Amino acid sequence: MLQSYPIAPIDQALTDAVAAEIDRKTKPPGSLGRIEALAIQMAGAQNTSAPAADPARLLLFAADHGLVAEGVSAWPAEVTTQMVANFLAGGAAANVFARANGVDIDIIDAGILGDLPDGENLIRADIAKGTRNALREDAMSKTEVLAALEFAASHAAKVAEAGVKVIALGEMGIGNTSSAALLAHAIADIPLADLAGPGAGLDTAGVKHKTRVLEQAAARRPGKLAPLDALAAFGGLEIAMMAGALIGAASRNAVVLVDGYIATAAAMCALTARPEAGPYTVFAHRSQEPGHRLMLDALDADPLLDLRMRLGEGTGALIALPLLKGACAMLNEMATFESAGVSEKAD
Amino acid sequence: MLQSYPIAPIDQALTDAVAAEIDRKTKPPGSLGRIEALAIQMAGAQNTSAPAADPARLLLFAADHGLVAEGVSAWPAEVTTQMVANFLAGGAAANVFARANGVDIDIIDAGILGDLPDGENLIRADIAKGTRNALREDAMSKTEVLAALEFAASHAAKVAEAGVKVIALGEMGIGNTSSAALLAHAIADIPLADLAGPGAGLDTAGVKHKTRVLEQAAARRPGKLAPLDALAAFGGLEIAMMAGALIGAASRNAVVLVDGYIATAAAMCALTARPEAGPYTVFAHRSQEPGHRLMLDALDADPLLDLRMRLGEGTGALIALPLLKGACAMLNEMATFESAGVSEKAD
Repeated sequence: MLQSYPIAPIDQALTDAVAAEIDRKTKPPGSLGRIEALAIQMAGAQNTSAPAADPARLLLFAADHGLVAEGVSAWPAEVTTQMVANFLAGGAAANVFARANGVDIDIIDAGILGDLPDGENLIRADIAKGTRNALREDAMSKTEVLAALEFAASHAAKVAEAGVKVIALGEMGIGNTSSAALLAHAIADIPLADLAGPGAGLDTAGVKHKTRVLEQAAARRPGKLAPLDALAAFGGLEIAMMAGALIGAASRNAVVLVDGYIATAAAMCALTARPEAGPYTVFAHRSQEPGHRLMLDALDADPLLDLRMRLGEGTGALIALPLLKGACAMLNEMATFESAGVSEKAD
Repeated sequence: MLQSYPIAPIDQALTDAVAAEIDRKTKPPGSLGRIEALAIQMAGAQNTSAPAADPARLLLFAADHGLVAEGVSAWPAEVTTQMVANFLAGGAAANVFARANGVDIDIIDAGILGDLPDGENLIRADIAKGTRNALREDAMSKTEVLAALEFAASHAAKVAEAGVKVIALGEMGIGNTSSAALLAHAIADIPLADLAGPGAGLDTAGVKHKTRVLEQAAARRPGKLAPLDALAAFGGLEIAMMAGALIGAASRNAVVLVDGYIATAAAMCALTARPEAGPYTVFAHRSQEPGHRLMLDALDADPLLDLRMRLGEGTGALIALPLLKGACAMLNEMATFESAGVSEKAD
């Protein structure tokens, strides 16, 4: 998948040297816990002993889902397009958290149903207007999947080449927890009953119905599927794009910051096809959507935050971003025992 | 304790209105999880429907501990003063994280043993040069405790009156995990064997020795103690000051952001004496020091982060601060369904 985007192995000598440098900082060794591990990971991904979290950018992919016709969401499909308009106007949670962190957002129409006036801030992929109904047929053709992967990989690579150090992945798409659940099931064999959750607000009966629809859709393409096949079978356009963006960003030594449930399904696709992108990938938070924990376990991923968030849009990634900034500042700015004239621990 | 610093009850009508306002924002109700709860708490504490996390300030209290003579720390006592010099020079982890967040630090000599040249950035309390050895005698006189409480309450109140919205509490003091453990034991009856941990780096034998010393010290003043008595018995000056600062800040409607193990022991003192300060207090993170979990449980506190940090200095509070900024930005800046023209969920 996206083999024209080669991903370099991490330079172990570099990360070892960074770890040793962190142990010379004025603090008990290891006492900054995961902040230290983050600094080491970012140094490896960016292939430098002085990694940076600035500038960061959120790539926010929006698309619609044919499966919504089966009543799998508590919200009408029109909300996808309305929320893209909200992103463009700067009023959504993602905008607010991005501003608070000094982060720009690329708003990408990966395949929404609605029509929006041309705006300089909307990036249009023009691949398809939504996916087909995955209960009845494949959500996308292979050609559409490949186009979505390439579009996003190319965009992320360009963003990284322009100097962006951290690329956060977020999404909007009414119905996309259903696609994400089907993908996680097809790729990692996680039971759909454990993956189907309330999403943006289904009640118990709604979750039951959603589970039944997902099980029927999965029966159309049973067994484990390769990422490309899974994406074609179950969508969505924005998920394929997040998978592509992850690979494109990693190929250009950007750190990839993955948001919640949907973005993690995209990461499952990307990392199954291209496990060498793993060391470039940081999982921001554990979503309140129950199945997220199982996806993260399948990836052996331990996200940074657990704040009972379940909004998407990249909001979890944006909320985690200051930890990456702190990690870089620690490595780049803290004094050493020697430079500060502080006595070391007695042995 | 510090009764001249009255703390107002939270206006429930105000927080109810803020919660309703958050439900009008363009997101599924409750989907920002703890970020929403933070916004509501901050509105209540600051008594406004438009709370703010800027400006925030770290009050960083440093002091020495007579108990260090008993070999309870892996580090020599001189490190306290050396680290204060490091704070003044801007090279410590606290400085780095404060700069990354645009936060000023007040560095307060609550009672360090060493002598430092006069610097405009060091605030001197001049109460005592370190505590006495709590294994043999009370660490502080009641007069010293009261002076430490008042000094810090007065300082925090002034800082809040000058417009600071969030006051973070951090500390430096070789040996202070021992004081903190003794305080948590005396106040909440938590077993010392569960509270005594490696601190800044003791090995297994060291923890065993520390536990024995703490048990002997506790035997000198057995049973549950009131906060003032506990602080006198076991110190330290910086812990008493954090307790005082919490009360002083709450009395002026500032949000108090509590760091890790040591700061939580101070919060136990403050909130046992003045439970009405609870709604003003946010617990930033769960420290890797094993006993911290038990302290938090005793306070029924659920900290925001768990990043296996165990450094102190307010570093956990500073790393959590962006969550408070995000919460305020969400409340103050997000569009509503009505303003953004987004359809609401089907019922």
